[in-house]
Amino acid sequence: MPRYKLTVEFDGGPFVGWQRQENGASVQAAMEDAVNALTGAPALVYGAGRTDAGVHALAMVAHVDIEKDYGADVVCNALNQHLRPAPIAVLAAEQVSNDFHARFSCIRRAYEYRIVNRRAPLTLERGHAWRVTARLDADAMNAAAQTLVGLHDFSTFRSVQCQSKSPVKTLEEISVSRAGEDVILRCAARSFLHHQVRSITGSLVEVGRGKWRARDLKAALEAKSRDACGPVAPSDGLYFRRADYETS
Amino acid sequence: MPRYKLTVEFDGGPFVGWQRQENGASVQAAMEDAVNALTGAPALVYGAGRTDAGVHALAMVAHVDIEKDYGADVVCNALNQHLRPAPIAVLAAEQVSNDFHARFSCIRRAYEYRIVNRRAPLTLERGHAWRVTARLDADAMNAAAQTLVGLHDFSTFRSVQCQSKSPVKTLEEISVSRAGEDVILRCAARSFLHHQVRSITGSLVEVGRGKWRARDLKAALEAKSRDACGPVAPSDGLYFRRADYETS
Repeated sequence: MPRYKLTVEFDGGPFVGWQRQENGASVQAAMEDAVNALTGAPALVYGAGRTDAGVHALAMVAHVDIEKDYGADVVCNALNQHLRPAPIAVLAAEQVSNDFHARFSCIRRAYEYRIVNRRAPLTLERGHAWRVTARLDADAMNAAAQTLVGLHDFSTFRSVQCQSKSPVKTLEEISVSRAGEDVILRCAARSFLHHQVRSITGSLVEVGRGKWRARDLKAALEAKSRDACGPVAPSDGLYFRRADYETS
Repeated sequence: MPRYKLTVEFDGGPFVGWQRQENGASVQAAMEDAVNALTGAPALVYGAGRTDAGVHALAMVAHVDIEKDYGADVVCNALNQHLRPAPIAVLAAEQVSNDFHARFSCIRRAYEYRIVNRRAPLTLERGHAWRVTARLDADAMNAAAQTLVGLHDFSTFRSVQCQSKSPVKTLEEISVSRAGEDVILRCAARSFLHHQVRSITGSLVEVGRGKWRARDLKAALEAKSRDACGPVAPSDGLYFRRADYETS
């Protein structure tokens, strides 16, 4: 049975998140419904990461097995057709070997967090960024963030609902940069804890507005306690940016 | 009576356009209602340009007279407060002399048109760009566009509803460039005809997809006939980008 790797962009606004849930529309369910509309058979779509309600994706990777050999172009176009009018688009589809697994084969996940640093409310970017009114020092945020790179116990930056067995993760890289009124955080790791990026972003904003110093961020990390975390950044500004695989 | 120059960003999606109209919500009416909520008096808000339904603004300039001397910061914050939840934001307010007029003092208007050049439907940019599926040669579009620079009779690129006295205008500059899947058109002139940017964009897309050559665009201009225009680009991708004044 042919397996397809799908690269998926979505606006997370109307969804309870990637994962199928009882309490609302999920991206996964919309994808599975679209596959079902194409094939007539029930489908299981696996994603590289589970995103929260309101979190967006620039390039989520997913895979699905489809019995008939339609070819990648037909699958891509047909899914986009059936996904309408949901704000989900398959950017690319390719046939992959059956040992490819969007979640378990993934060796690196990258997120982006978009802050608009200004006093005026958002209009064009509403729901797609976090407006922070206090002036942020992006260089200070970037410098402080480097203390998080490497292997650490990230209990401070982990939701109490997190189901990961261990709070110990390796943050491969993180950067914060300013372009005009936009302050962009980017980070990558093999895997992330629940709310890790939003927790780190919220804490770095405390640094950016001068309420925390770099040493306060370090102390928060070393506290290994949820109580030491800054305010968690809202889901609006978070984007699943890419998923990397050994073989692709 | 203090006059304020306002720099305004808005998502044109829910509006019939800038100008107050009988048939729906306009940006101008929302602005005037917000001023009225602040002052208790009827207000007239003048804009640098009239935008069509669905057209956005990154920095429309407007002016309004307000009897009480609130100061620019108070005006800016109060208008943003009263504009909620409309997707309109006052980015800046400054007191100006009473001979400043957002429309009549404006010496240069600039627009931007955003094309997303890909097969997949839009999700995050839905309503904020025009998706063109045929591969566009942005360099060819840019080269062909230069024939439009200068003083010309733009009858070809003018809506039949255009109320301008003359179809003769000077296009000061125009450029088309690609950044990944985004193809961005930028242009500036003292003033534009109705649908001029969308008509030019639609015709340049014919060049970009190889259906027209540069000489066909030149012939269309020289025909001075609406019939010679390519398909008019949709309003979704058009942004009023800036307005320039002698004194500011």
